[in-house]
Amino acid sequence: VTEDAATVTPAQPGRRVRADAQRNIDALIAAAKVVFAASGVDAPLTDIAAQAGVGVGTAYRHFSQRSDLVTAVFRQEVDACAQAAPALAAEYGPGEALTRWIDRYTGFIATKHGLAAALHSGDPAFAALPAYFLAHLGPALSTLLAAAAGAGEIRGDIAAEDLLLTVARICAPAGVLESGQAQRMVALLLDGLRYRAVT
Amino acid sequence: VTEDAATVTPAQPGRRVRADAQRNIDALIAAAKVVFAASGVDAPLTDIAAQAGVGVGTAYRHFSQRSDLVTAVFRQEVDACAQAAPALAAEYGPGEALTRWIDRYTGFIATKHGLAAALHSGDPAFAALPAYFLAHLGPALSTLLAAAAGAGEIRGDIAAEDLLLTVARICAPAGVLESGQAQRMVALLLDGLRYRAVT
Repeated sequence: VTEDAATVTPAQPGRRVRADAQRNIDALIAAAKVVFAASGVDAPLTDIAAQAGVGVGTAYRHFSQRSDLVTAVFRQEVDACAQAAPALAAEYGPGEALTRWIDRYTGFIATKHGLAAALHSGDPAFAALPAYFLAHLGPALSTLLAAAAGAGEIRGDIAAEDLLLTVARICAPAGVLESGQAQRMVALLLDGLRYRAVT
Repeated sequence: VTEDAATVTPAQPGRRVRADAQRNIDALIAAAKVVFAASGVDAPLTDIAAQAGVGVGTAYRHFSQRSDLVTAVFRQEVDACAQAAPALAAEYGPGEALTRWIDRYTGFIATKHGLAAALHSGDPAFAALPAYFLAHLGPALSTLLAAAAGAGEIRGDIAAEDLLLTVARICAPAGVLESGQAQRMVALLLDGLRYRAVT
């Protein structure tokens, strides 16, 4: 293992990373998630390093570009949300698993206000992330929709991608989650899914 | 009637406007609506005047600020959409009138992409328009919702304002209407309204 390998970022997953370097990377991503949510994606790297218990030099070595850190946080949150789908499907019935996953996804979108602005900034560093989002969350939701439709709990003609993007749009503006409006309207969409199953 | 009264804009509705001046104002608003939809709200005033068959000097006299023209177009479209509600209620049953009105409203939102950017530009000239929008479309939709709920066709616990803003958010991004995605998702919301009436 060379020193070079230790400085690799998660953007190059094929390369081996020393265990202590990986711990620092994980701590920085976890810290960035917290700091971004509290202060936005333009928060100083010194704050993120302090939160992670890591020196600023180390933070800078792993994430020399802020966009690398934003990308890493975004991917990790997408991955966690996608992985929640089979976990919920194992624990709950198909309709309940779907409802709970949409609630989980709504929470993910709700903490993404700062990230969303970065993602839509036109910075080419973020160009691949919408595809990453759809490639991971699309199949996760599709599987839940198919199971719930198979159980006769919802209609079977709604595309996962339509629903993902629509829920994101409903939840995106600041304040709508705090007011409960987004949750009410997402619940109305889910009732729309149930309506066709009933008739 | 003084010359001053003839040059009044619709922003001062309490003042008398000579019939020929009003014809010019109406023609300019109608032309602006077409030109804004085709070329955006930054389209040259010369294009709007030409479309209206009015001299540029006249156009400038009535709408010295572009924001006056944007405001006039927006208000007229809000008024027309609000007035469609009682017209549809007179012609169709409560559920059908609601569906058709939402479709009409979706069309209004769809042509508002350029206006939306102007409205959200922070220009104080547009500060009163969101309130105008809600004050006119809120009661229009409320009446339709109450009639449909009274007829047992939909649930009665959804606020008109929630629905107005959510449909606007679903329909706002460019391309979603062309792809049919917005229509499918708005239809799903309406089915959500029907679901609670059924159970």
